[in-house]
Amino acid sequence: MSDGPSVDPRVARTRHDVLAAARAVLLDEGWERVTLARVAERSGYARTTLYRHWPQRLDLLRDLIREEGRLTHTAKTGDLRADLVAELEAFRVALTTTGFGSVFIAIGQQAGDDPEFADLNREMRAEGGRVLHGIVADGVQRGELASDLRPDAAIPQLVGPVLFRHLFEPDDVLDSEFVLSVVDWFLAAAREGEPVSPAPSG
Amino acid sequence: MSDGPSVDPRVARTRHDVLAAARAVLLDEGWERVTLARVAERSGYARTTLYRHWPQRLDLLRDLIREEGRLTHTAKTGDLRADLVAELEAFRVALTTTGFGSVFIAIGQQAGDDPEFADLNREMRAEGGRVLHGIVADGVQRGELASDLRPDAAIPQLVGPVLFRHLFEPDDVLDSEFVLSVVDWFLAAAREGEPVSPAPSG
Repeated sequence: MSDGPSVDPRVARTRHDVLAAARAVLLDEGWERVTLARVAERSGYARTTLYRHWPQRLDLLRDLIREEGRLTHTAKTGDLRADLVAELEAFRVALTTTGFGSVFIAIGQQAGDDPEFADLNREMRAEGGRVLHGIVADGVQRGELASDLRPDAAIPQLVGPVLFRHLFEPDDVLDSEFVLSVVDWFLAAAREGEPVSPAPSG
Repeated sequence: MSDGPSVDPRVARTRHDVLAAARAVLLDEGWERVTLARVAERSGYARTTLYRHWPQRLDLLRDLIREEGRLTHTAKTGDLRADLVAELEAFRVALTTTGFGSVFIAIGQQAGDDPEFADLNREMRAEGGRVLHGIVADGVQRGELASDLRPDAAIPQLVGPVLFRHLFEPDDVLDSEFVLSVVDWFLAAAREGEPVSPAPSG
């Protein structure tokens, strides 16, 4: 949503109600059911109203994900480990308890075949990684993380293990303790003084 | 496939031909098209023959994945870094070039809703991680990796970042260099002498 400050309050209300209905459909019925028709039905608004705001299903999904992205981010405190844990924990919760996990993954899967999904995937990744990126950049600037560490390179190291456990290790618990272990693993490799890219050993 | 040594050669031949056809359908047409009907057509065998060997589509998928698992594994040499790189590189190739990437992910996604897919996911993960598990266990035994490192815990750290880049960072190159960086990142945290679980800093 890019509603400016001067948006008509009725429009804002409509958007808010419809997005809330879309979120409810997602949680209760799965993301495949998040269509303009079903969300119109659930929200009580006319389909024509929805089409005016979101010409296509993808537009609605995009706003839903943007909204979710805003909700799940944390505020930085300047404590590197605590900030990493809080932000990765927010991602874990989004992945496991809100139904957004399967949405993220489905978008990633479809991005390979469909340019519109590729755009959405790109946007989702930029918005999803924004705060983590900032935490790592701050850590580098304060000298707590290796000076040659690129924040972009840190994101797969932090998010990847959580995603892997969610997708392929459902028998193993994906809990706060796992998130802590991923952050500590990351810090063990990335703290200032550790070589991020050790010389070949073999 | 669990064909024993005394299997009828005609049966072995049929299985081989059909699995080759299934693999070709997967690569050329996508994994949704890997059905008994389509694979029968492509292989030139009768549907009834296929149903005798694989009563359900899932049985065929299972054998296809087992076969792929065997093909993509590497042989350990005892050089920790080289072995990790070779095995993770084989996974990268399977993920990016064989069409199996979307199969793995689709199975992971469906495992949440479907007990048969959950079984297949479990088997795929055990077989997929078997060699990596052994490499890490050997590294611990030789004293090259931290003695308190559990091989199970290492797998998400190695495979997760590769999976993340494949799924969510298609604009960034998932190449051999990325695999190297993941292994070195892992080793920086997991080498003997590094604390795998540092004390809280915050």
